Amino acid sequence: MTTSRKDHKILLSESEMPTQWYNIVPDLAAPPPPALHPGTKEPAGPADFEPLFPLALILQEVSMERYIDIPDEVLDIYRMWRPSPLYRAHRLEKALDTPARIYYKYEGVSPAGSHKPNTAVAQAYYNKQEGVKKLTTETGAGQWGSALAFACALFDMECEVWQVRSSYDQKPYRKALIETFGGVVHPSPSDLTEAGRAILQANPASPGSLGIAISEAVEVAAPLPEVRYALGSVLNHVLLHQTIIGEEVLLQLAKVEETPDVLVGCVGGGSNFGGLSFPFMREKMAGTMNPRITAVEPSACPSLTKGLYTYDFGDAAGMTPLMKMHTLGHDFVPDPIHAGGLRYHGMSPLLSHIYELGMLDAVAINQNECFDAGVQFARTEGIVPAPEPTHAIAGTIREALDAKEEGEERVIVTALCGHGLLDLTAYDRYFAGEMNDSAYPEERVQEAMTRIPAV
Amino acid sequence: MTTSRKDHKILLSESEMPTQWYNIVPDLAAPPPPALHPGTKEPAGPADFEPLFPLALILQEVSMERYIDIPDEVLDIYRMWRPSPLYRAHRLEKALDTPARIYYKYEGVSPAGSHKPNTAVAQAYYNKQEGVKKLTTETGAGQWGSALAFACALFDMECEVWQVRSSYDQKPYRKALIETFGGVVHPSPSDLTEAGRAILQANPASPGSLGIAISEAVEVAAPLPEVRYALGSVLNHVLLHQTIIGEEVLLQLAKVEETPDVLVGCVGGGSNFGGLSFPFMREKMAGTMNPRITAVEPSACPSLTKGLYTYDFGDAAGMTPLMKMHTLGHDFVPDPIHAGGLRYHGMSPLLSHIYELGMLDAVAINQNECFDAGVQFARTEGIVPAPEPTHAIAGTIREALDAKEEGEERVIVTALCGHGLLDLTAYDRYFAGEMNDSAYPEERVQEAMTRIPAV
Repeated sequence: MTTSRKDHKILLSESEMPTQWYNIVPDLAAPPPPALHPGTKEPAGPADFEPLFPLALILQEVSMERYIDIPDEVLDIYRMWRPSPLYRAHRLEKALDTPARIYYKYEGVSPAGSHKPNTAVAQAYYNKQEGVKKLTTETGAGQWGSALAFACALFDMECEVWQVRSSYDQKPYRKALIETFGGVVHPSPSDLTEAGRAILQANPASPGSLGIAISEAVEVAAPLPEVRYALGSVLNHVLLHQTIIGEEVLLQLAKVEETPDVLVGCVGGGSNFGGLSFPFMREKMAGTMNPRITAVEPSACPSLTKGLYTYDFGDAAGMTPLMKMHTLGHDFVPDPIHAGGLRYHGMSPLLSHIYELGMLDAVAINQNECFDAGVQFARTEGIVPAPEPTHAIAGTIREALDAKEEGEERVIVTALCGHGLLDLTAYDRYFAGEMNDSAYPEERVQEAMTRIPAV
Repeated sequence: MTTSRKDHKILLSESEMPTQWYNIVPDLAAPPPPALHPGTKEPAGPADFEPLFPLALILQEVSMERYIDIPDEVLDIYRMWRPSPLYRAHRLEKALDTPARIYYKYEGVSPAGSHKPNTAVAQAYYNKQEGVKKLTTETGAGQWGSALAFACALFDMECEVWQVRSSYDQKPYRKALIETFGGVVHPSPSDLTEAGRAILQANPASPGSLGIAISEAVEVAAPLPEVRYALGSVLNHVLLHQTIIGEEVLLQLAKVEETPDVLVGCVGGGSNFGGLSFPFMREKMAGTMNPRITAVEPSACPSLTKGLYTYDFGDAAGMTPLMKMHTLGHDFVPDPIHAGGLRYHGMSPLLSHIYELGMLDAVAINQNECFDAGVQFARTEGIVPAPEPTHAIAGTIREALDAKEEGEERVIVTALCGHGLLDLTAYDRYFAGEMNDSAYPEERVQEAMTRIPAV
């Protein structure tokens, strides 16, 4: 099968699919700070995580192996949609009249329509191996919840999902997709948990947040031996599983003899961004290429560009270990923007640490510019992006226009981490002019930051 | 790129994509009967179609060339998603415990999520070549309307869509998708046309039908020189454009050295079914293979299995030429089942003729069996099928279970002509037990048949 830069799709065969995940931790100049026990504030050990996660994932969380073999059963499921295509954005380039060459890795071909199944399948597999019968989780836009429901269907496990209320109301099709895969879904805050009931008592109209939904899912899983919790982003093992994205892109770019000048990705919890960029950071550290690496986050929830780098809880109720990360305050509730997957108060501790090491830049973009980019992308490339990757596309368009101004044949690589077919109400509101162009909510963030615990 | 039967996806490179459409007409034992002018009842000539279609498509409609070159501009757009993957349904086979090998051609990778862009792009191209500025059309489930809106976006043309009211109400996301691609959509019957107003006067709560929506779109296009009409199925040139599906499947099956024992597809107007099966019929006529070929239609709208084979109008208002086809009566309004794309009163005249020649079987299946199949498919193969191809999957599962009973390694090939992500409300109703298990509405059909015109 021949491939050239003139093609639209750069494909790999199933036999070319990478068979290992890449762990960036041992390659870093300094190790990331440990998580702390929320009571003792001493470094948390494996035992602190055992009520929530199977041992195999806890070991991956702290692993110092550079490469971890992907189990055969997981590889076999990945092959249902992987390797995913890398597209050359010929028509977008033409519309922008740019000398830049734009490539986008498309994860929307997965059953749940995003990159999330890469880790959902791995997490369900390791839980199943250790006898777990049911997984609980939170979901924002619903991408993660549907991914985990899909993975649980394949391993014959139950799946119970708390979906952030604002997304639950905006995106009813996600609930139907979770149910089609056999999962159960509740709006969060719910009256099924103490954490949810406490929030509802304080504010019955709470739009919810990922932090609140995490509290609910954790509360249900922790006491039950055959129930575990699964997180869709933030943690080291989640980012690890997503590195198959970047590993494939490296192989695909090599097929067309391209080296990226810049990598652009969107960041919420950090898993899609880490998955794309970590293998490129490895190459950069090894001196084989030298791309700039840029993360784009929403102005309404700008944890990298405006958050503090400090120890904070991963959830709203303060039940999780303390993690050193960029945070807007664990109980900060962002505006209900459409990019539900980017509404997390914190940022992956590993990615936060890497940001502090100076290995990437970050920029925050408002919602309207992102949807402008999403519509232009749909009308040229034919794929309607999810609201989350419209941030990556908006950043990519900025780069392409800058390359035009500079007269540079810049090679831009980005990740279209999911399609927006289940987010079309967001486009509806955009066309109706009803889009809230959320900017940085400085006062509410400052207020939430006062409740970050001292360590 | 190596491929084997153990793979999940059998892929072709862009350079392997077929570059010609196959016209089955010259290979048939007898020519299909001509369309008739609705007034004179004499065979209709090109001039009768000129108010609606560009000359290039009218010539394709009556062409006796076996192969027609696909224009370069169309090939270039096809390459945005084509060649589409052929999947081996390993997990469905396992769940059914069948010795059958099941392959499905997946057209859901297209921008509109179905096979419809194959002809939408071609039709927009030929119209653009002849100076047309705007296309009007009808749509049932919305697959065709969003495909044409996408195609018009690429050729910088306007697109106006009349969507069958029952689907418009059930599937609001389709409207948003059409708008995201830059199209305009109205529910049908609408008060924008005489045809629509007449129906609304008789029945203000009319759920609409494809026949009514066609009348509206035709009425708007016919008098205006720069506006033409585009039909998403039924006509010869539409089926012609879809043959790229079957041509690709032939190449893909050859890669894994398989010969089909049976082909199963769903039929509404016939374009997906013709597109899959015509190249296989050619091979069968040439003696290179001998598959059974089976069409599955909904019990609620069983034109092949219960319709008359006679001349009838293509639309509800009786504005189109008379076509000899299997028909339930041009003003028959089927139950508002979820497979909106299969709710056409007639059947492609070409496919009807081929059915009369004995080149395929047909079977009608109720809605609940189809959704049972759709859910089993989603939970094993990971793709949620649109309601239309759940009919093909239900037929495939019947074949696979029969092969199990017979202990046969039957090779079954089917077409998953679109995903159901914009049809998830249908799955919602299925899970809620609110699915109307529509069966053959014999009395209403008999009544509608009394109004079929005498020729």
